[in-house]
Amino acid sequence: MNFSALHQQVKQQTDASLLKLIEELPDYAPQLKAAMRHALLAGGKRMRPLLVHVVGNTLDVPKKDQMAISMAIECVHAYSLVHDDLPAMDDDDLRRGMPTCHIAFDEATAILAGDALQTLGFSILADAELSDFGDTKRAKLLSILANCAGYHGMCGGQAIDLASTGQTINIDALKMLHRLKTGALLRACVEMIATVCGTLDKQSEADLLVFASNIGLAFQVQDDILDVEGSNEILGKPAGSDEAQGKNTFPAKLGLDGAKEELAVLHEKALQPLTRLPYNTDSLIAFSELLVKRDH
Amino acid sequence: MNFSALHQQVKQQTDASLLKLIEELPDYAPQLKAAMRHALLAGGKRMRPLLVHVVGNTLDVPKKDQMAISMAIECVHAYSLVHDDLPAMDDDDLRRGMPTCHIAFDEATAILAGDALQTLGFSILADAELSDFGDTKRAKLLSILANCAGYHGMCGGQAIDLASTGQTINIDALKMLHRLKTGALLRACVEMIATVCGTLDKQSEADLLVFASNIGLAFQVQDDILDVEGSNEILGKPAGSDEAQGKNTFPAKLGLDGAKEELAVLHEKALQPLTRLPYNTDSLIAFSELLVKRDH
Repeated sequence: MNFSALHQQVKQQTDASLLKLIEELPDYAPQLKAAMRHALLAGGKRMRPLLVHVVGNTLDVPKKDQMAISMAIECVHAYSLVHDDLPAMDDDDLRRGMPTCHIAFDEATAILAGDALQTLGFSILADAELSDFGDTKRAKLLSILANCAGYHGMCGGQAIDLASTGQTINIDALKMLHRLKTGALLRACVEMIATVCGTLDKQSEADLLVFASNIGLAFQVQDDILDVEGSNEILGKPAGSDEAQGKNTFPAKLGLDGAKEELAVLHEKALQPLTRLPYNTDSLIAFSELLVKRDH
Repeated sequence: MNFSALHQQVKQQTDASLLKLIEELPDYAPQLKAAMRHALLAGGKRMRPLLVHVVGNTLDVPKKDQMAISMAIECVHAYSLVHDDLPAMDDDDLRRGMPTCHIAFDEATAILAGDALQTLGFSILADAELSDFGDTKRAKLLSILANCAGYHGMCGGQAIDLASTGQTINIDALKMLHRLKTGALLRACVEMIATVCGTLDKQSEADLLVFASNIGLAFQVQDDILDVEGSNEILGKPAGSDEAQGKNTFPAKLGLDGAKEELAVLHEKALQPLTRLPYNTDSLIAFSELLVKRDH
């Protein structure tokens, strides 16, 4: 299967599994259920599930473990987007060409849908039928999810982002911000797969984490570049919104060419440790290219 | 130790442990950290930790397990209060006589603090040093927490509450709402202690859960009564706010006397299964009395 077909397959399987998960919820809170479905299924690229599956396939991790991990991660990712889009945060009306959750529903419902999606992420890992690897690994997965999502990861990064919007911060602070806000969840994809894989040596795990960290930051640099260069139509949201909101971005710090150079450097840093891995890394390389060359 | 001294001790230990937990967070997001501390430490009565300790002591569960459970529950409880108070939700400026989180800080910070506190609840259970009872019980604790917090519990109940505000719902729907919104978390306190207790028979566990369910609903009935009868000063928030907001309440459905009768019936239903338990249930009874007779 070529890489594009794999991505398509992961997207379809993730969409179908998430839809099933939502459909199975009882109907006593129909508005909340609809908002959770909207947030989870409004056309995401499923980059995190793809990363989980690419690393999972590379390490021969069973499909059902891959699926539980990627669904949990995607719930947490979806919750973060719903809350980030709120009027009190980035105040975005559009995402992926669709109305954001608080526009499609209302603010209270969007806050609650985000809350319930975060819980659902933990619920999936706590309850999923996993391979027979014992609950010590399950507990580790939950610990990784909590660590990447909370103060030490995504929430911490978003707080720094809010505090530094309209302020000047240096490039190291900007990198730190995005390592927490975007990078931690991408890194967790790899960390979780490494956790359930029974055969990974320490050096290979460390190499995969270096790959993930650099890819995570590259993802954000490309996001910033697209916000400058992209069109509303392809992005599915207004281009130029970072600058309009006074956000610190890589192009603002380094210039557009400087940001592109930074992207190339991070990409190179991500690929370098792969050369040491005793696995076929073609799909990891393909993933990194998809990520840095995407146009939306 | 008499019951009041036990409550005082639990309150002090919970406050101290939660403060330590927050103090240990790194300082890179100082505003978020301060908001989390405000939400966790602004004078809660610690009824849920007290319930955990009362049931835990009754069943001889080690102190460190009790503490991990009660801290996790309290983080989730605190997050729910921060989000419920938001302008888009109940729009409350005061809680326990203090400014609510979005008033003391701002809305974005309050949303994030709630988010990070929810994550912290899971983090505590995933990472706590527990008694040597194996990770299967730890995974079960995380599953219970997710179940009581998300769509199947607190978030679902809050969604029904929002949807029914200003509408007329019947008494059964009102009970269902509060069994989810308030009851699920109180029930989870007992369910978690029962999970870690190695010696509890099925009938006793069922009896304790009937106690918890009825106590949970009684808690809400008393809350509604206090909102009618209490004074701003003692409540630490404006009395009469339920009616002003068009909330469905037990006094609104049943009249004030009817609500008091319902409270007595629920209290009786809570106490009845305790008579079968092969334990000294004095502190469980004392807890139930504290709960239904409290004035704030």
